[in-house]
Amino acid sequence: MPDISIEYKYSGTDVSGLHKWKDAADEARKKLIHKTGEGSEYLGWVDIPVDYDRDEFDRIKKAAKKIREESDAFVLIGVGGSYLGARAAVEFLAFPGRIKDAPDIYFAGNALSTDSIARTLQAIGDRDFSVNVVSKSGTTMEPAIAFRIFKAELEKRYGKEGAADRIYVTTDAKKGALKTMAVENGYEAFTVPDNIGGRYSVLSSVGMLPIAVSGADIDAIMEGAERMRQVCVENPFETNPALQYAAFRHEMMEEKKQVEVFCIYNSSVGSFSGWWRQLYGESEGKGGKGLFPACVTYSTDLHSIGQFIQDGKRNMFETMLYAENSNIEMHLEVDEKDLDGLNYLAGRPLSQVNRIAVKGTAQAHADGGTPNILISYPKKSEHTLGQLFYFFEFSCGVSCYMLGVNPFDQPGVEFYKNNIFKLLERPGY
Amino acid sequence: MPDISIEYKYSGTDVSGLHKWKDAADEARKKLIHKTGEGSEYLGWVDIPVDYDRDEFDRIKKAAKKIREESDAFVLIGVGGSYLGARAAVEFLAFPGRIKDAPDIYFAGNALSTDSIARTLQAIGDRDFSVNVVSKSGTTMEPAIAFRIFKAELEKRYGKEGAADRIYVTTDAKKGALKTMAVENGYEAFTVPDNIGGRYSVLSSVGMLPIAVSGADIDAIMEGAERMRQVCVENPFETNPALQYAAFRHEMMEEKKQVEVFCIYNSSVGSFSGWWRQLYGESEGKGGKGLFPACVTYSTDLHSIGQFIQDGKRNMFETMLYAENSNIEMHLEVDEKDLDGLNYLAGRPLSQVNRIAVKGTAQAHADGGTPNILISYPKKSEHTLGQLFYFFEFSCGVSCYMLGVNPFDQPGVEFYKNNIFKLLERPGY
Repeated sequence: MPDISIEYKYSGTDVSGLHKWKDAADEARKKLIHKTGEGSEYLGWVDIPVDYDRDEFDRIKKAAKKIREESDAFVLIGVGGSYLGARAAVEFLAFPGRIKDAPDIYFAGNALSTDSIARTLQAIGDRDFSVNVVSKSGTTMEPAIAFRIFKAELEKRYGKEGAADRIYVTTDAKKGALKTMAVENGYEAFTVPDNIGGRYSVLSSVGMLPIAVSGADIDAIMEGAERMRQVCVENPFETNPALQYAAFRHEMMEEKKQVEVFCIYNSSVGSFSGWWRQLYGESEGKGGKGLFPACVTYSTDLHSIGQFIQDGKRNMFETMLYAENSNIEMHLEVDEKDLDGLNYLAGRPLSQVNRIAVKGTAQAHADGGTPNILISYPKKSEHTLGQLFYFFEFSCGVSCYMLGVNPFDQPGVEFYKNNIFKLLERPGY
Repeated sequence: MPDISIEYKYSGTDVSGLHKWKDAADEARKKLIHKTGEGSEYLGWVDIPVDYDRDEFDRIKKAAKKIREESDAFVLIGVGGSYLGARAAVEFLAFPGRIKDAPDIYFAGNALSTDSIARTLQAIGDRDFSVNVVSKSGTTMEPAIAFRIFKAELEKRYGKEGAADRIYVTTDAKKGALKTMAVENGYEAFTVPDNIGGRYSVLSSVGMLPIAVSGADIDAIMEGAERMRQVCVENPFETNPALQYAAFRHEMMEEKKQVEVFCIYNSSVGSFSGWWRQLYGESEGKGGKGLFPACVTYSTDLHSIGQFIQDGKRNMFETMLYAENSNIEMHLEVDEKDLDGLNYLAGRPLSQVNRIAVKGTAQAHADGGTPNILISYPKKSEHTLGQLFYFFEFSCGVSCYMLGVNPFDQPGVEFYKNNIFKLLERPGY
């Protein structure tokens, strides 16, 4: 059994109510496993938890160890799928007291605004740092601009050779601008697999190097993913949460819901939401189809968008993700005067309050006409994170095939790029 | 004339096309000015740029100076409207080299997760710190829990009296738990005005104290707000961007758009988006009405949700907010080999690339069926920020009255709170 479970109490349906989607979901599952659907050349992520390159994995661990020893700051240069998964993992796992002696990790090359680069350089200050630049081609504008700037900064500080010893590239195995630079300058290089697209790449070297630098146990992440892979690939609909989540989303589309609100209950899971948003938005949102993917952090955002979800336009449903147990526990002391009226909570674990907020919110929103499902995992850890990554990837592939779209292309993203290149008068545009 | 302007080139309409909304917008404007609409007891924000309490403003500046001298860290405890405006301002104005010697500012008491409190305590470490707790009642659960914990920490470090000298409360002028604590313990107290609701309160003491602590010039923010107030209150539809923005949103609702995507082009404006989201979501989202408010940061999120906006379900429009000029400038050097193909950008100001991305994206998305308007301001500064705050508040009030909803209540937020209290077995629930 997986550690991830779905509760349907506030969804207006349940597993038996979703049965009408069972055959479609199962057919989609088979397309993923047998590589018979559209975009099947990008299905490398399906088996990566069992067939990943052990030699490259060992090189990643060695490089991460070296980076941790030599650097107080680490800059991950990448955009979209080249950093969202790593960032999700680093923040998910970085609770106080958990990981020691890790360099501070900065994310750069994911924007065109000049202040973000300036802010990162300022934050690094004169501390020793290393860089991992992640780009299949090496010519995507945002990371390419940032890499020119951080490379120049490293060369100024450490000389050309010293800089080369602090630059790690994750790119195409054989060709492209970054690969050529790596060979010419002697940068250590890791591989973006040909058969895995950016938004499904977190379990490849793309995610694993920065996650290992953060001090997390990447073996445990892969073990979690392997465990979830077995469930997703083998289990029938009734015990397969990935098929059920896809079915539930289709049930909501059939009810004309327009927006899926992905709700988390801990700000450290916020970047995981960002990873989810790319995965679902970019995989499903094509040909005039898909659910608008929105992200909120509760209880924080109950005080901003809660009113809308309770009582505004009835066009949403919620997918709530929460941990059954907290990594950090706290208690309130009894206060003699109890002016704030909180003494009834004194002595109880505060994490209990957050858990109760999940159910209280779910029920209130359902009563107001916003159905929701609760996806829970036991506790934040590498093992549960590996399961979550795989669960959402597999379910996304299933949902796309059920919708009749290719889960692995992104034809719409070329439009704005071409427009920008034309306006910039880039040669050839 | 205001410094804020709206470009309609990619919106599918223009000012004359919006004329059909002119009378309704003007009527709503009059309701705000003459206090004749629903919720008119909460219209104190309309005149605050011209009638704010000068004595309290001076006390804010003195308190901010003291905090800056005595503390290396500053914790703002508040949730929803009690912190979103301040956070928006602090991050909007905190570009490198801009403000020196400000304490690091942390935002607490806006969540129930125990790690967020633990992370803030860890980040403060043994540095000297002060606290501003913002709550009208003093009994809202998230800030009340955080205040108990941070107050205990201050008392442990500085003794009861020393702690009292580092605690600043912003609360009801006369009553409530926080007011009582302030009187009993000698905390300096500032006022949450009775006639201004949380999400419209940034220009009151609620926002001004933390913004002043960050080192920003709060006089200039009020001057900007005053300038925009004059435009919003006096100008006819043709030269009144606040009425036009409200009209455009109603045009989009008429076209059955479900989601307003608020797009910014600089991550430092991200918290401003969060403030916007509460303002519009909580003001409009009631009685089954409103536009789902979603926030994205471009170009970053073009690499995640860009595909959906270009080519997914056609149920959105975009409101893009950008600065005509950048506060930080950078240039790329020419690279001999030009492997990344970026030499065509060398020597040009990089901020130009970001500005061009605005137009390139707007055009591509419009071509794909997602209309958008561009709202621009000259450059990030206190003066433009004051204008932006006032502009969006006034336009929101107009839009709500046009929609037939009370802009100033939030009846839906009580539901989940009551549910949570029941589940927590709070006395009386």
